[in-house]
Amino acid sequence: MIYGHGDWSPLREEVLHDFATNICKATGLKGLREHLKEHLRERMELISIYPEPMAVPLREAVAEREGVKPENVACTSGATDAIYTIANLLRGIDGATIAIPTFTEYSDACSINGIEPFYTSSLSECGIHIAQSCWLCNPNNPDGKVWDREELETLIIANPDTIFIIDMSYGKLSRISVGKPKELIRHKNVVTIHSLTKHLGVPGLRIGYVVAHEGFIKALTAIMRPWAISSLGIEAGVWLLDHEENYSKAIKDYLEDSRILEGIGNLNGYKLKPSSTNFYLAECIFSDSRSLHSYLRHNFGIAIREAQNFRGLRPGHFRIAGQTREENLLLLEALKQYNLHYKSDL
Amino acid sequence: MIYGHGDWSPLREEVLHDFATNICKATGLKGLREHLKEHLRERMELISIYPEPMAVPLREAVAEREGVKPENVACTSGATDAIYTIANLLRGIDGATIAIPTFTEYSDACSINGIEPFYTSSLSECGIHIAQSCWLCNPNNPDGKVWDREELETLIIANPDTIFIIDMSYGKLSRISVGKPKELIRHKNVVTIHSLTKHLGVPGLRIGYVVAHEGFIKALTAIMRPWAISSLGIEAGVWLLDHEENYSKAIKDYLEDSRILEGIGNLNGYKLKPSSTNFYLAECIFSDSRSLHSYLRHNFGIAIREAQNFRGLRPGHFRIAGQTREENLLLLEALKQYNLHYKSDL
Repeated sequence: MIYGHGDWSPLREEVLHDFATNICKATGLKGLREHLKEHLRERMELISIYPEPMAVPLREAVAEREGVKPENVACTSGATDAIYTIANLLRGIDGATIAIPTFTEYSDACSINGIEPFYTSSLSECGIHIAQSCWLCNPNNPDGKVWDREELETLIIANPDTIFIIDMSYGKLSRISVGKPKELIRHKNVVTIHSLTKHLGVPGLRIGYVVAHEGFIKALTAIMRPWAISSLGIEAGVWLLDHEENYSKAIKDYLEDSRILEGIGNLNGYKLKPSSTNFYLAECIFSDSRSLHSYLRHNFGIAIREAQNFRGLRPGHFRIAGQTREENLLLLEALKQYNLHYKSDL
Repeated sequence: MIYGHGDWSPLREEVLHDFATNICKATGLKGLREHLKEHLRERMELISIYPEPMAVPLREAVAEREGVKPENVACTSGATDAIYTIANLLRGIDGATIAIPTFTEYSDACSINGIEPFYTSSLSECGIHIAQSCWLCNPNNPDGKVWDREELETLIIANPDTIFIIDMSYGKLSRISVGKPKELIRHKNVVTIHSLTKHLGVPGLRIGYVVAHEGFIKALTAIMRPWAISSLGIEAGVWLLDHEENYSKAIKDYLEDSRILEGIGNLNGYKLKPSSTNFYLAECIFSDSRSLHSYLRHNFGIAIREAQNFRGLRPGHFRIAGQTREENLLLLEALKQYNLHYKSDL
């Protein structure tokens, strides 16, 4: 981590409505989380034994879910661990094309491993200047954009010597399908990254995985440290894979409720980018997001993710993730109030 | 991980007495573990929030315990994560002197990051051929050897351009003091690695830390991935630091009981290295450890750690860690029986 992040909610006092983290807040997932907690409470003796060094039980469960072989899967301590380990493996490769604005860690992990990052804001532009690795977030953080599938496929085929690392951490939180890893990895130059916890609202567990061609996974696991995932993490991961399907409607309902936030685009003084997910990138065009954040915190107990530290964004940008219907409506009202308040201050 | 490890106990069916893992088995620690489990059961809601990106609450607690500044501490997902991250930071450095036999991960982590390992079996020999990094395990795994403090200090002072990475993961399981990190890091070229869980018998949690000069820690944290330790891991770590002192006698008693294993040195057909810790490196001089292991498993339900895959060791080597007094005595008897059985088979 070279630059900071902004999302450790317990540190933020007085936050009543936390729109800042993009954790899935589907109320319908409460049952899943309660069952999982109960399951882990009963399996607490696992803290006394070493985890399986390469998380084999989880690896096998992921392979079954994704319809691939265990040899196509590597489990990691969250998606960020996957990003860093892949960058470590690619050390020596000639450059990284990174589509911005996006999650900062691709750039950090590449720089740390001596891979020079090149930034682009359009996929078609990539086609001309593409490096030996290309990092994409699909759907993208912070704007929830899903890359055009055909355009992406054309790019992958046209650049067989470039490795495409596609971070699908928010794939299960997308209204538009981002494709199945099983199909994507038919291209040997595609590597997909996944989170097991973001869409289920349990990011404290740190469980992620990588799906790729066997040769790539073999090279990746050879450089991975053993015991990367905690015993409880492995246990939780296997349990989640067994139970998450019962909750797909809860996520769907939540994604629909999150669309209330699209109303921001109709408010005076704000712009909003289209998003396929539970979170949105907005821009305040009359003030910076720091002042906006301070106003929302003080007057409404609302936290937003100031987004000015994403490369390629402006001081007015902020990211918000869907909460309950009522909270989403409250945010719209609060943003309206800020505009009025700001004008009255002029 | 390039070569495998041998210590995922749940996979080993029929194991009644697990001498293979070097987890601390002090019966007096049961109370600590039960309290910790209860504490984590009550804090299970933590799985729903992101961990603090750099584990700041744990970092501060470690600094207080070690009598150093938080700027001297970096927290990692277990000691192995520390080894890999340090090797990643040292990428480009000219070589690694590694004192063998020792934990395989120093060599693996260095090779992965393009640092060529050089092996030596004696510290004084190091003085002549030392590389720009020197990796020592103190007390050493697999033989429990504590490096002579004066000899080590002389080496550190004589080689100011070499970074000494001293893995003190078993430091709290040593009858001989290995020194305090606070004092060791007065030498700017010393970095110490610690485990928070090995001596307390909770390795499933994955919590470790590094203590070093501020400049080194600053460089290290800059390349570390955020959210490396799970929310429950951070919570458990802070709790353990608050409570572990009440259990130092339990560990001391256990280390005394483990000395029963020193009787192996008096058995016909076996050799034993002196050890300061709860585990010992032994050698069967009439058979390889694979056959010995198979016999012990089949006839006594005993697991040992075959040690032939440690660089520098022979087929007869095996490592055993102290269990209860009764189990330790059983192992002595079982080893005696194997010798008789082996002779009768000739």
